[in-house]
Amino acid sequence: MIPTFVYWLDIIGVAVFAATGALAASRKQMDIIGFGLLATLTGLGGGTVRDLILDRPVFWLRDQTYLAICLGVAVLCYFAAHLVQRRYPVLLWLDAIGLAAYGVLGAHVASEAGAGVIVAVALGVVTATFGGLMRDVVSQETPLILKQELYATAAVCSAALYLAALFLHGSATFGAAFAIAAGFGLRAAAIRYGLSLPRYRPREGRPY
Amino acid sequence: MIPTFVYWLDIIGVAVFAATGALAASRKQMDIIGFGLLATLTGLGGGTVRDLILDRPVFWLRDQTYLAICLGVAVLCYFAAHLVQRRYPVLLWLDAIGLAAYGVLGAHVASEAGAGVIVAVALGVVTATFGGLMRDVVSQETPLILKQELYATAAVCSAALYLAALFLHGSATFGAAFAIAAGFGLRAAAIRYGLSLPRYRPREGRPY
Amino acid sequence: MIPTFVYWLDIIGVAVFAATGALAASRKQMDIIGFGLLATLTGLGGGTVRDLILDRPVFWLRDQTYLAICLGVAVLCYFAAHLVQRRYPVLLWLDAIGLAAYGVLGAHVASEAGAGVIVAVALGVVTATFGGLMRDVVSQETPLILKQELYATAAVCSAALYLAALFLHGSATFGAAFAIAAGFGLRAAAIRYGLSLPRYRPREGRPY
Repeated sequence: MIPTFVYWLDIIGVAVFAATGALAASRKQMDIIGFGLLATLTGLGGGTVRDLILDRPVFWLRDQTYLAICLGVAVLCYFAAHLVQRRYPVLLWLDAIGLAAYGVLGAHVASEAGAGVIVAVALGVVTATFGGLMRDVVSQETPLILKQELYATAAVCSAALYLAALFLHGSATFGAAFAIAAGFGLRAAAIRYGLSLPRYRPREGRPY
Repeated sequence: MIPTFVYWLDIIGVAVFAATGALAASRKQMDIIGFGLLATLTGLGGGTVRDLILDRPVFWLRDQTYLAICLGVAVLCYFAAHLVQRRYPVLLWLDAIGLAAYGVLGAHVASEAGAGVIVAVALGVVTATFGGLMRDVVSQETPLILKQELYATAAVCSAALYLAALFLHGSATFGAAFAIAAGFGLRAAAIRYGLSLPRYRPREGRPY
Repeated sequence: MIPTFVYWLDIIGVAVFAATGALAASRKQMDIIGFGLLATLTGLGGGTVRDLILDRPVFWLRDQTYLAICLGVAVLCYFAAHLVQRRYPVLLWLDAIGLAAYGVLGAHVASEAGAGVIVAVALGVVTATFGGLMRDVVSQETPLILKQELYATAAVCSAALYLAALFLHGSATFGAAFAIAAGFGLRAAAIRYGLSLPRYRPREGRPY
């Protein structure tokens, strides 16, 4: 039985990542087809790579709902993005929701498929970050993972906490909610207060 | 039975995309191995992603003809590219042929594999655009899908018209020819006359 | 029976590519999670693409050793990278070892899976270059394959010599050692003495 929360995580993750893709398209002043393309790439990219690695059927192949959501979100953003005062912050916050939700979802799917705990966390991070990474590479923005704030860290946190909850025989639904809240909270604090882990600093100001 | 036109679309698509990869290599003044690598990546990239997503055997794995075509085209371009007055326009036009042919081919393969109509159009677009996207990312050019003219739109048009022809019980071969002509014509008009769909414009000149 | 050298090639390739990813992370002054992410992407990227194309189970999915190596290397580099006087040359030399080892390994795996000789060489090159390519794209460096020195050429050389050794009924282990030495030697000479194949030169200084 597939827990209900998995279905909703999927829908939410696809929708918010699709919205970040469409917002990136708006920043590049693309046409509506470009909105659809970038929304779809971002919304479905992470989960597609996860499914390919796990050798599962790609999740959007048999159920057209996912593509329909991406395209619907793209159309909505094309006509409504101007209502948003500043689009990049919105992109960041939506991306943060998707990051936490997909970190949990990726870990869940991988652990259902029998993966070990390190592999499951890694696939959570892949699911959470690859859609946004493709968005940033294609639209020639600096990938978010290169920036100062906690980014991949939030995905690691969500994935690991969810697996910890399963290990402690907690409810999967409750564990997922807790892990998403924690991952999102971490990323939100990082965006809001500029939190970061200590970054590698070269000694004596060497240029490289 | 595989219709003959599918085989030829494949060969033509691989050859023209390989040529665009080799032309990109010539613009970066790469050596002959770099020509081979970029020609192969561009020629086979889109179809490879399509086959991975559909969980089909990757099309160039059992039949070495495809790789041989890419390498042959790379060698030819290495020695003959200087005969071309201006190489970027040639790259654009060859890319336009490949775009239309692969849009139809991707939709055909996906619909044979039982995909729904939205998924089949999406896989047409993936097949048509991912080889060129990899070429542009690896050779550090601005991806064509970010540019002004109708690009992804032409691939959508080819894929959708082919599926419409099948739905109307038309001949697959005739439908393919029509869809390719329409997709290529659209892209050609866009290149030639600067056609474009209305692009997203932020209100009041906001910076982002 | 899997020859022992294949196992060691895999471990060495993963470790040295992970180290190049971590060094790239140090150049971008990322945090420790960023080190882990870039080390893992670089260490496992090439082999993952190879396994997906060959439709084999992805090599790091069932054996967590590979991910553990990537993460261990990342931590080590985070705390020790400052001991290295100049990090980019170290990255280049480690990358050269990985390039030669993975060229052979990719050709071996592909030829075991029944691929023809051109396909096996191509998959050797894919295995050898895609991890580094992902590293360079994600960390926004110029891909090494775009640079002057023999790069893809060294991978082609390793893969082709190994297959030639098998064809001549030589020992696989000896053939692998010879092919790696030759590929690494070629790349080393190229780095050290600036060797390169003749690069494509446009006539009459045309801009493109």
